Amino acid sequence: MGKRVFNFYAGPATLPLKALKEARRELLDFRGSGMSVCEISHRSKDFQAVIDEATALVRELYAVPAGFHVLWLHGGASTQFFHIPWNLSLEGKPVSYIHTGAWAKAAIKEAGFFGEVAMPASSEDANFNYVPTTFNLTPGAAYVHTTSNNTIFGTRMKAFPETGGVPHICDMSSDFLSRRLDFSRFSIIYAGAQKNIGPSGTAAVIARKSFIEKAKDGLPTMLSYKTHLKGNSLYNTPPVFPIYVVGLVLAWLKNHGGIDAMEKINEKKAALLYGALDSSDGFFRGTVRPDSRSIMNVTFRLPSEELEEKFVSEAKKQGLIGLKGHRSVGGCRASLYNALPVEAVEALTAFMGAFRKAN
Amino acid sequence: MGKRVFNFYAGPATLPLKALKEARRELLDFRGSGMSVCEISHRSKDFQAVIDEATALVRELYAVPAGFHVLWLHGGASTQFFHIPWNLSLEGKPVSYIHTGAWAKAAIKEAGFFGEVAMPASSEDANFNYVPTTFNLTPGAAYVHTTSNNTIFGTRMKAFPETGGVPHICDMSSDFLSRRLDFSRFSIIYAGAQKNIGPSGTAAVIARKSFIEKAKDGLPTMLSYKTHLKGNSLYNTPPVFPIYVVGLVLAWLKNHGGIDAMEKINEKKAALLYGALDSSDGFFRGTVRPDSRSIMNVTFRLPSEELEEKFVSEAKKQGLIGLKGHRSVGGCRASLYNALPVEAVEALTAFMGAFRKAN
Repeated sequence: MGKRVFNFYAGPATLPLKALKEARRELLDFRGSGMSVCEISHRSKDFQAVIDEATALVRELYAVPAGFHVLWLHGGASTQFFHIPWNLSLEGKPVSYIHTGAWAKAAIKEAGFFGEVAMPASSEDANFNYVPTTFNLTPGAAYVHTTSNNTIFGTRMKAFPETGGVPHICDMSSDFLSRRLDFSRFSIIYAGAQKNIGPSGTAAVIARKSFIEKAKDGLPTMLSYKTHLKGNSLYNTPPVFPIYVVGLVLAWLKNHGGIDAMEKINEKKAALLYGALDSSDGFFRGTVRPDSRSIMNVTFRLPSEELEEKFVSEAKKQGLIGLKGHRSVGGCRASLYNALPVEAVEALTAFMGAFRKAN
Repeated sequence: MGKRVFNFYAGPATLPLKALKEARRELLDFRGSGMSVCEISHRSKDFQAVIDEATALVRELYAVPAGFHVLWLHGGASTQFFHIPWNLSLEGKPVSYIHTGAWAKAAIKEAGFFGEVAMPASSEDANFNYVPTTFNLTPGAAYVHTTSNNTIFGTRMKAFPETGGVPHICDMSSDFLSRRLDFSRFSIIYAGAQKNIGPSGTAAVIARKSFIEKAKDGLPTMLSYKTHLKGNSLYNTPPVFPIYVVGLVLAWLKNHGGIDAMEKINEKKAALLYGALDSSDGFFRGTVRPDSRSIMNVTFRLPSEELEEKFVSEAKKQGLIGLKGHRSVGGCRASLYNALPVEAVEALTAFMGAFRKAN
């Protein structure tokens, strides 16, 4: 058996060992049913309990107000990128997108299929190494869309824009459940599961009822939020196993003190790693403006691409996996999601010190 | 631990015990990587091997000709219901759907969002208790769509229509890889995984290159077949775990003699169960015209709804799970997918005999 590694992948990403062990323990026999969770009908009481538990946990952990629905849908954020404008854009009104990197760009592209897209702020001028803090918001927009954490560029939005009554939709795929949120500021938050809460194959959508219940009619059935609201995420067969594992991960998070405790640990891990970058005399260079640094994805460069390659490859031999930057930007990246233990970052910073000395 | 039951659910459904054990064995440590398969990057060599193996196995098992692509997409058949007309309907031409039951109806509904739908044959006149064998096909249709097996009504299409050069698209969700196919007859076959080949969350789409490569442009990115062809099913993060388990199920199928051996076993299981219906002096009444009987989903009624309820409930106590008919039609249904052992049907027919005597 391979020794468990420290996994810095950006997604799919490391999961809590306890949740994986629980999934393994009952993989052939879900709660004494004599069946795998992969084999039970999605219309059974057993699966209803699974999806209800995942929903109850996300509500409890985030303190989601009663005025919000929780949906578990197929696909990931890329699927939501076109669901959102299709359901929620309005004839004769622009939609408004803050452009902070590759995933924001992908969301903007899909919105463009459905109408005019305004872009009140962008950090493209500096290759997305920061997140704008002033926004020239478009009056009368159907909604404004932001990305709370930019997985590829290693930035995060610390302060969300004041939208002045315009509904705010936020892609939180890479920092979902990593920090406390004020739900009064949002109309929809959504996240592909495979970064911070589970395996790939499902997306969590938490939506203000008064907003999403006004979604457009006349869409193909599976594309309509109303279908999934009415069907309580069970209009068609949902991605059973991913939702089940999300539930196990959320239970682990609850047992570890919930978001407040996790946020402290996340800040600690990030501080450790950014500290190592900042004290390396420029050998490791963070790519992000300090005020915009992500606590989930830490991006950095080494003095040369050759050294970066060597770094990633030697780290791997030490059981530090997934440190290569996204293929679109190069460099290195360490993702520090909830499930990554502090020890992983300690091991990484120790390795970084040794690597720097040796090179 | 609950004793392993005999699982007759229509989907999600029983899976081969060997595949589940393999998934359990490596759930915390995929091929010595020190990570779960749920934790590895979809861009890693490890996952590329997973998806390549699933593709190679489906190609080998079905003897898929070189002129076909294999895609693994998010969602199930319900997702394909709108993908198909959106990508493949043609301006000024109708699309043509054979109506054989609830899922065909759902496919027809989605096609209606994109243009005119012709319906050259339907068995609605007899509440879908048979599959039409004569088709008054619409000349010049962009394609003709069929459903090879009707999960809810318990029928199957034995002989597929001669489409006279019109591309033939078939939803094979509930009998995918259960019988030998002549690919020269089809342009696309597709299936949600959760009936005969794996957990829910992914759909297999096997498409003739010369047909699907002419799909329309200008669609939202994730909705375009061209996106997934170009990205080799990896444009966005795919449903990793479901695809992985599909691979394990297909490997099991190969080790059990492939489709030819499986088809014989499936025929045997179906013969056993239909035999029990037909020799029950009308106590158990098959709902389907004998020439249209499915070998995957066997639907039947008892003398009263009270007895049906009692039957399902007492069967459950005997470890025979999931015998309730679909909520839209009532009655009873036993699904006999590839992974269901002959012993399960023997246990069911024995129970049926005892139940009949006692009631």
